[in-house]
Amino acid sequence: MLPEPIKKFVEVFAKLPGIGPRQATRLAYHVANQGKSSVAEIAGAVSGLGNLNACSQCFLTTQNGAVCDICSNPQRRKDLIAVVEKETDLISLEKTKKFPGRYLVLGDLKKDGVLNELQKMRLRTINGAEEVILALSPTTYGDINSAIISQELKDRAGKLTRLARGIPTGGEIEFADEETLGSALDHRS
Amino acid sequence: MLPEPIKKFVEVFAKLPGIGPRQATRLAYHVANQGKSSVAEIAGAVSGLGNLNACSQCFLTTQNGAVCDICSNPQRRKDLIAVVEKETDLISLEKTKKFPGRYLVLGDLKKDGVLNELQKMRLRTINGAEEVILALSPTTYGDINSAIISQELKDRAGKLTRLARGIPTGGEIEFADEETLGSALDHRS
Repeated sequence: MLPEPIKKFVEVFAKLPGIGPRQATRLAYHVANQGKSSVAEIAGAVSGLGNLNACSQCFLTTQNGAVCDICSNPQRRKDLIAVVEKETDLISLEKTKKFPGRYLVLGDLKKDGVLNELQKMRLRTINGAEEVILALSPTTYGDINSAIISQELKDRAGKLTRLARGIPTGGEIEFADEETLGSALDHRS
Repeated sequence: MLPEPIKKFVEVFAKLPGIGPRQATRLAYHVANQGKSSVAEIAGAVSGLGNLNACSQCFLTTQNGAVCDICSNPQRRKDLIAVVEKETDLISLEKTKKFPGRYLVLGDLKKDGVLNELQKMRLRTINGAEEVILALSPTTYGDINSAIISQELKDRAGKLTRLARGIPTGGEIEFADEETLGSALDHRS
């Protein structure tokens, strides 16, 4: 009973991360009800993404030609590299204003830690860095991927590190799991 | 530091229901990384929604000209009308295959129950129905809106009803709130 354009929208949007068929259906009707000019604006916002490309050095999605603002900034250290999974992880790290190095964006990682050829190729662009921070989330799947990536990078960096585990600001000791609390004890300062 | 097309996408998508700025950013990079043909497919799926219109009788978003499939079906009772807020509510009711009547889609209701002119106009298309079911969710805001809509419809329908309140299938008596449980007792069968 759904009109074809609604079905098509749901089919396409339900595949995107964090949007299931139910929310896609709700979005479809919401957008359709906003009228033609709003539909055109939203479609235009999507089309605009087709003009972006990946930075040739760190693979961050960027607009200004071959190299992104971070990689073309001479103030950023070339010998300190944070390997991240997603662009949004990079954005979060940039917001801390505490990282003077550069990045390598790997793209979506698999749960089993198997890297695709593109990811292996990206990792091979790292050669002779003083330190590489494996900035993956401290989840089971981040841990597996960090182990695999460590193998790939073992002869390519002076030091491989990961982000510290501990109790997040505002978190309560009582509710921290044993591993987190153990790590917070080990790395107390 | 976000490229313009990403910013624009986030601005537009963060306004949609259930999508905040954080998810919009994640979506933007995800879509941008899928490449040009995928971007074009998604933009096309949005554009397609511009070809839809509201049914002239029930105001359901539809594709096939002036009147939707439900309103043009002679088997559906004209004197039994379910007033719904959203198209997705209508779809849920249709899935029960238990409703032989027709619908009136009002569009997003306000929390304070103030109806806009379009909604009042839509309600005035109901005239002389035997029964109107106010099929709004049994939330505070659904209750307020049902009360206001009842006022609008009091001389326009033989009977005004609402959906039954009770314990949902799979729900536990122990966890039902007093009002729900009281209603389930009152309407036991």
